[in-house]
Amino acid sequence: MLDRDACLALDADDPLRAFKNEFVLPEGVVYLVGNSLGALPRRAAERVRRTVEDEWGRQLVGGWNQAGWYDQPLTAGDRLAPLIGAGPGQVVVGNTTTIAAYQALAAAVRLRPGRKVIVSDPRNFPTDHYIAQGLARLLGDYEVRDYAEGRFDDAAVVLLSEVDYRTGARRHVPSVTAQVQEAGALMVWDVCHSVGAMEVDVSQADFAVGCTYKYLNAGPGAPAFLYVNPRHHATAENVLSGWHGHAEPFAFETGYRPAEGVRRFAVSTPHVVSFAALEAALEVWDRVPMAQVRAKSVALTSLFVDLVGDALKLVSPAEPESRGSQVSFHHPDGYPVMRALIDRGVHGDFRAPDVLRFGFAPLYIGYADVHDAATTLLEVLDKELWRDERYARRLAVT
Amino acid sequence: MLDRDACLALDADDPLRAFKNEFVLPEGVVYLVGNSLGALPRRAAERVRRTVEDEWGRQLVGGWNQAGWYDQPLTAGDRLAPLIGAGPGQVVVGNTTTIAAYQALAAAVRLRPGRKVIVSDPRNFPTDHYIAQGLARLLGDYEVRDYAEGRFDDAAVVLLSEVDYRTGARRHVPSVTAQVQEAGALMVWDVCHSVGAMEVDVSQADFAVGCTYKYLNAGPGAPAFLYVNPRHHATAENVLSGWHGHAEPFAFETGYRPAEGVRRFAVSTPHVVSFAALEAALEVWDRVPMAQVRAKSVALTSLFVDLVGDALKLVSPAEPESRGSQVSFHHPDGYPVMRALIDRGVHGDFRAPDVLRFGFAPLYIGYADVHDAATTLLEVLDKELWRDERYARRLAVT
Repeated sequence: MLDRDACLALDADDPLRAFKNEFVLPEGVVYLVGNSLGALPRRAAERVRRTVEDEWGRQLVGGWNQAGWYDQPLTAGDRLAPLIGAGPGQVVVGNTTTIAAYQALAAAVRLRPGRKVIVSDPRNFPTDHYIAQGLARLLGDYEVRDYAEGRFDDAAVVLLSEVDYRTGARRHVPSVTAQVQEAGALMVWDVCHSVGAMEVDVSQADFAVGCTYKYLNAGPGAPAFLYVNPRHHATAENVLSGWHGHAEPFAFETGYRPAEGVRRFAVSTPHVVSFAALEAALEVWDRVPMAQVRAKSVALTSLFVDLVGDALKLVSPAEPESRGSQVSFHHPDGYPVMRALIDRGVHGDFRAPDVLRFGFAPLYIGYADVHDAATTLLEVLDKELWRDERYARRLAVT
Repeated sequence: MLDRDACLALDADDPLRAFKNEFVLPEGVVYLVGNSLGALPRRAAERVRRTVEDEWGRQLVGGWNQAGWYDQPLTAGDRLAPLIGAGPGQVVVGNTTTIAAYQALAAAVRLRPGRKVIVSDPRNFPTDHYIAQGLARLLGDYEVRDYAEGRFDDAAVVLLSEVDYRTGARRHVPSVTAQVQEAGALMVWDVCHSVGAMEVDVSQADFAVGCTYKYLNAGPGAPAFLYVNPRHHATAENVLSGWHGHAEPFAFETGYRPAEGVRRFAVSTPHVVSFAALEAALEVWDRVPMAQVRAKSVALTSLFVDLVGDALKLVSPAEPESRGSQVSFHHPDGYPVMRALIDRGVHGDFRAPDVLRFGFAPLYIGYADVHDAATTLLEVLDKELWRDERYARRLAVT
């Protein structure tokens, strides 16, 4: 087992160590919630200021042309594309993951008109499962089938997460994609919990969606992304057929005519101020070697699992290759345990009913951080420091 | 006809004159595009900085509770509600007008299941008409009918703009709403071009949608809003059934169960950084007497129409009570005319095929501004200054 000095030595040798300085991290905190909301990139504050004061303030409506606001959904998409194994002109950024999933599912059912089944995993992040239910309800004669049934031969589409939000379990994208497509269904991947934590490749999928505010560090509620495989660009329909997906938005025609390429999946006015932070975050990712990120992620999660040992029951897969960049444990009193831990400067989060989650963002979390987090967690458990009534009170957002 | 000194005297007597200091306006420009993108409120820059550096940067994921991010869609909705004649708990903020219109139309067709007609006006802003077409296409057996046909007795829903984006023509909300509802259809108003320019009252409508980046000055791509009449709160369905509209989002249930009240129309993670600018903009509106805004708006548009006189053909209604806060004119070479005008510091915009638009935001546009704008416009026309090839080249966004 590594002691703290050995962890410090690993930090000193870490090829990614310089990236930590690019983020604002509060003093005295080990922030293991980068899988929920990534830390603030230093350059984001200045980038947002520039958009508000110099672009909006001085260029005003001219910013649509001069500052490139109009094309942001596509320029940000091109910049983000390598992080998911996609190429230029295949990714559009905007709105939220939920809305992007709705667009993907609706497009998929239109591409497979005879098939009245949407397959989703009840263990997907709930919003994905809910939006599948919402679409099926609107369509009337559609069924949402549990992925565990394993039947895809009458399904229009299958929606799955690459990495499970609760357990951190990782699915094998190539084999699942191939199995679904061989059955004649379309494959939609949600990569919210993998993008920015490992090498993601959705290039064989039909659609993929994800958010940018977790490992990508683009800020609370930053715009989401939608990948559309080029083989569907000419035929897939965007049910959210807003004017920014029109072939000629400024012709103000009365009939919707979809744009060429992935632009048809743009909806309407992009959230420009939120895009500014995303652009700053992507400037960091331009320089990040993802293989090193994954190697360090595996090392960090493995170290944490080893240090926690038998003190808690592991929820995540024990084999590091089978999980993302998070480690989850069971504890029947998980909520007060997490509150007690946060009170001592180690920030993880809680997922009902009984899961403690710890996310390891390799750009700003080091080996000594992991050691400190595990030491504090063991102390909270050993001394039962969580048995304090102030930790029982639930906050609105857990 | 008023001369410039008379206009300066009116500015000196203007009860709204102090508001101009709350906005950043570029030197030497008369900005008559506030109906497209409102000017930057000075406080917005600081409010956005605080959200990025103090909230995201220091509170990190804790901002969902501490900074109130989680409730922003409802708190901003309550703050905005008086601007549209609504009460607390009736408005949810987020996403875009197009997406809000989709939610409203989809909810409406679910509330009127036997009626397979969506009525829209081809002169609505195109995205509204397009999204109606997208929904009808997805549903399969629905028709989008032209409002001009005047038949609503078999319609599920009617979608109209209070103020026409091209002409500035204003519809009479109470009588149209009553007519539509008497025919058994539901009424959805788009108030993008009226909110913040006049007293809006959608309280008799079934739904209303609008944006916050025009007269409300909340910044490029600021979140939109959706009003849902309380009589529908228990029964209307949000087809974009994301987790933030769930009764207990943090229970992570597998089945969608809608929240009580208007919260069920929330979708997913709000665009927090964009919300910051909206909150700053609404701090201004808290203090604005809307009757004075409308009175000044009528005076400004009337003055501009008078000063332009016969030099251009008026597109907008001549009667000020029948228009919003914009004035539009025809010109066969409208595009180069507008480019020439902008080149001389008077910013309006162009709407295909031949419309020059001028928007008058009473919080920061004064009578002398109107005089200067008209003088420059008359000079551009009189001397044919627009006949210059550099004004012919089209920009991406017009």
